[in-house]
Amino acid sequence: MPALDLDGLRPSVAWTGDRIQIIDQTKLPGEFTLLELASVDDVVDAIYRLAVRGAPAIGACGALGMVVGLDERRPRDSSSARTALAELAAVIGSARPTAVNLQWAVDRVRDVAALGESPSEVRALALTEALKIIAEDREACTLIGEAGRAELAGLTNIMTHCNTGRLATAGWGTALGVIYAKAAAGESVKVLSSETRPLLQGARLTTWELLDAGIDVTLMPDGADAAAMAQGKVEAVIVGADRIASNGDTANKIGTFSHAVNARHAGVPFYVAAPLSTFDITLESGVGIEIELRDDAELTTWRTEPTAPDEVPTWNPAFDVTPAELITAIITEVGVLRPPYETSIRAAFAAGGHQ
Amino acid sequence: MPALDLDGLRPSVAWTGDRIQIIDQTKLPGEFTLLELASVDDVVDAIYRLAVRGAPAIGACGALGMVVGLDERRPRDSSSARTALAELAAVIGSARPTAVNLQWAVDRVRDVAALGESPSEVRALALTEALKIIAEDREACTLIGEAGRAELAGLTNIMTHCNTGRLATAGWGTALGVIYAKAAAGESVKVLSSETRPLLQGARLTTWELLDAGIDVTLMPDGADAAAMAQGKVEAVIVGADRIASNGDTANKIGTFSHAVNARHAGVPFYVAAPLSTFDITLESGVGIEIELRDDAELTTWRTEPTAPDEVPTWNPAFDVTPAELITAIITEVGVLRPPYETSIRAAFAAGGHQ
Repeated sequence: MPALDLDGLRPSVAWTGDRIQIIDQTKLPGEFTLLELASVDDVVDAIYRLAVRGAPAIGACGALGMVVGLDERRPRDSSSARTALAELAAVIGSARPTAVNLQWAVDRVRDVAALGESPSEVRALALTEALKIIAEDREACTLIGEAGRAELAGLTNIMTHCNTGRLATAGWGTALGVIYAKAAAGESVKVLSSETRPLLQGARLTTWELLDAGIDVTLMPDGADAAAMAQGKVEAVIVGADRIASNGDTANKIGTFSHAVNARHAGVPFYVAAPLSTFDITLESGVGIEIELRDDAELTTWRTEPTAPDEVPTWNPAFDVTPAELITAIITEVGVLRPPYETSIRAAFAAGGHQ
Repeated sequence: MPALDLDGLRPSVAWTGDRIQIIDQTKLPGEFTLLELASVDDVVDAIYRLAVRGAPAIGACGALGMVVGLDERRPRDSSSARTALAELAAVIGSARPTAVNLQWAVDRVRDVAALGESPSEVRALALTEALKIIAEDREACTLIGEAGRAELAGLTNIMTHCNTGRLATAGWGTALGVIYAKAAAGESVKVLSSETRPLLQGARLTTWELLDAGIDVTLMPDGADAAAMAQGKVEAVIVGADRIASNGDTANKIGTFSHAVNARHAGVPFYVAAPLSTFDITLESGVGIEIELRDDAELTTWRTEPTAPDEVPTWNPAFDVTPAELITAIITEVGVLRPPYETSIRAAFAAGGHQ
């Protein structure tokens, strides 16, 4: 296929000078709408509603949200600016609990901006740091894409889950970054996207952005994974991550663990692609990862249409934790990490990983 | 809990004297609508659209559809009645290809009714045979329920997939028949129902009928199976079947195979519950089972609301085939069949199974 040109694709999170502009992902694929976030309430609401989603993208949005918050509060001196930074980091950082990137990004902006000696210097440092986080994420996506392209060389039929592309990051994506890198290099690639119930990020977002980029994509129900693998339709599975513990246990969108079990059963390699900002090396294992439970309504209605009786109790965890033993390798911006992950993750951070 | 009284629950398929009355399952849970089928076109359309679904229920509906077809064609003599029977069995039997019960039921009505010596006798024999199929299915459900209740004694937390209850059969159901039997005996039972994408039979139908019967049910996404099992929420999985080969390989709703792989990984027993009419002992293994591929639209819209880009290609198999090696036991009306299935299935049929 002709090499894909990735320049000119609209980023999911952008800074206009005084506010944040995002693609409203709750409206896709039916409507393409840009949303402007001009207050902390706007930012928290957009993150909670998943108008912006994907661990790196909500990190980027949260970091810029710190600047929006400073503009909203207008602190009079550096001391009140620091108080404001601490409060903003707490409020924005808790909009969603599972993705580590969000708290990591707002804390990083808070800590750097707190060094400012005047409110305007605090604001300038906050903005510079937020834009730096975004630039680093773009760079990490590119490096993950290249590392994954080498790892998956010769494989064409790739299954993925949820959305981990340019709608989920500040760059080309993590797992989808690998797909884009293959396409950009002119390599053959066919994507099998699972729907990703209940919010259908695979159906709505992954298919939308891959079709938009001219990449071959086929949609299937989440539960079709076993049949697809048994029929030889999947040469590798690649997914993103919301939080990775120091032993490699990986929290990601609900359904990931199920795909990983099926991949193991079918003898299909199962990859995680994520920047080092997604790792939480303070956690020994996935047992410590807090899993967000979301509303019943996500399972009982789809927009205006009922999907289940209103009154039915639901179990609606946003994420599951795939045990490290089911993961073939973790593809990062500093290279491909392999088991035993305690050792390879520690080495990656010792060699210059942040946190 | 108080024992459940199952009398008085409305059957999914009923005969009014000159037409078939079904609950329109495409409208549930939003609307409870009865649909009258007064022509072969009505019958085929209702089966194809899944207004009536579940292998035993479409067998019952197809069997009664033979009578509707005779009334519509009004053959003048026994010879043209036999021709009509053959044509009707072919047309109705091919409304959906995977469930063996449909073809089995219409062939059975055809073969018995063909013995009639006048059009009115043909019609009377057809109706008697169709009602006999329904009565036998009700009896099979009761026996499956009791056999399953003994097999699952002491287990409370049961996961199921799709809908296999009174909406799927002429009786209390197959897999759900076991649940109803536990509830009717006053035993503790809590059901975890997966949604069953794309048509949400678990979300819409299983939760609806269990809530209606006062049985504890919780809804979760299909892909939450691995997480639920890892967290100890599932003591057994029980599903129905659309076609079972002579080695035990089982075609059932897409997603079943994925749940079975996860059950094996988690060490959770995985049961199939089905009447002998669901077995196709002409098939050596699941390899020979034709799998119905359904429309893109089932994955790209939910009623009026888009769920994916219109133009995305989909892979939408209605069923998958769970290999016998993943099935702990198959619960039938003649008892619980265990591996090696070649032997136990052959013995069940030798002892008086039909076909």
